[in-house]
Amino acid sequence: MQWPHQLQGKFLVFDGPDGSGKSTQFSRFAEFCRSSGLKVCEVREPGGTHIGEQIRKVLLDPANTEMSLRCEMMLYMASRAQLIEQLIRPALGRRELVLADRFISSTLAYQGTAGGMSPEEILAVGRVAVGSIWPHLTVLFDVPEDVSEQRMTARHSSTASAGGDRMERKGREYHARVRQGFLAQAQARLLGEYLVMNASPAAEVVFDRLQVELKRIFSAV
Amino acid sequence: MQWPHQLQGKFLVFDGPDGSGKSTQFSRFAEFCRSSGLKVCEVREPGGTHIGEQIRKVLLDPANTEMSLRCEMMLYMASRAQLIEQLIRPALGRRELVLADRFISSTLAYQGTAGGMSPEEILAVGRVAVGSIWPHLTVLFDVPEDVSEQRMTARHSSTASAGGDRMERKGREYHARVRQGFLAQAQARLLGEYLVMNASPAAEVVFDRLQVELKRIFSAV
Repeated sequence: MQWPHQLQGKFLVFDGPDGSGKSTQFSRFAEFCRSSGLKVCEVREPGGTHIGEQIRKVLLDPANTEMSLRCEMMLYMASRAQLIEQLIRPALGRRELVLADRFISSTLAYQGTAGGMSPEEILAVGRVAVGSIWPHLTVLFDVPEDVSEQRMTARHSSTASAGGDRMERKGREYHARVRQGFLAQAQARLLGEYLVMNASPAAEVVFDRLQVELKRIFSAV
Repeated sequence: MQWPHQLQGKFLVFDGPDGSGKSTQFSRFAEFCRSSGLKVCEVREPGGTHIGEQIRKVLLDPANTEMSLRCEMMLYMASRAQLIEQLIRPALGRRELVLADRFISSTLAYQGTAGGMSPEEILAVGRVAVGSIWPHLTVLFDVPEDVSEQRMTARHSSTASAGGDRMERKGREYHARVRQGFLAQAQARLLGEYLVMNASPAAEVVFDRLQVELKRIFSAV
């Protein structure tokens, strides 16, 4: 079968820290698949449905500083459950390629490793949220903290100096835990199959390597 | 110890179908405990916190007809997780009596028995939502469907005739499943200790019997 048509009816997650280039790769890959004649269902978390957007507002409301970690985790799972029923399950039923920007892998990294919840608790809730729908592959875009920081700073045109005050240092430690959370779950294969991409090179280079890897994985199946 | 001071630091849930008189008993019992000098923390689901009220809006928005059962369940659990961290855990720490109007028992009856989710899935998520906080006793107010229907009709001054059309009959079957969901979980002791009250008699009679039962249970401990 002509690449990328092996991906019909597959569910792929693209995940990684902010500044990893994940969303750039996501858009490129979706565009590539579409231009090859594949039907692609793109979903982004949190949100992606009318109800998910309402949940997203609660999650991102800056007034909600007192939100507990468990509440936050449940809200991400609620949005995810809706996304599954309303978009992902029907698209897989139509044999489309489903591409998700973030999924349970993000919860494991942010509320889990970085936030302090155990992976067992997150997986227990995740299994109920998604029912029988599980990603065929989770692609993680990995970069050292200094690279993601530089990219974030460039994106936001931030004027803050590069690593001085307490909050920024706390920020860096937190980002290091998030990165660790992504790498550890891949090693433990908590969600099944993972592909970890070195996302430090230029976007063009990462994209070429990504294609090679995905082609290899899905042509072997 | 003078009744009801045995209830210091306890967590009691009052639950049951709409029209069971649960909320009337809840208010009376809270008032009685307070007038006896007990500190009482009253919580009502969904809502009860600023964040919980935002979640409640999403749950009750009539435009959200496409909400999946799993999303709905996760939203109730999110609201509950916030309630636990923000109000229930601190109140128990201060040795107050916590009274909750609805809790996981409602999810087991509505999204579980009536909606179709398995109790195992709901309990798995419930355990994560509440952490280590579990009710000491769940009091269920049980009434036959015709009694709850009469009470609901009286409350809403409904002009609909008493049981004719398809939706009303569907409504009655649904309410029967909800009632069954409450009774079955008590029999299986899914959440630990239950007290099932016959809530058909007049509120005054139910309240007197409730006091006798609670006094018996908590004086024996």
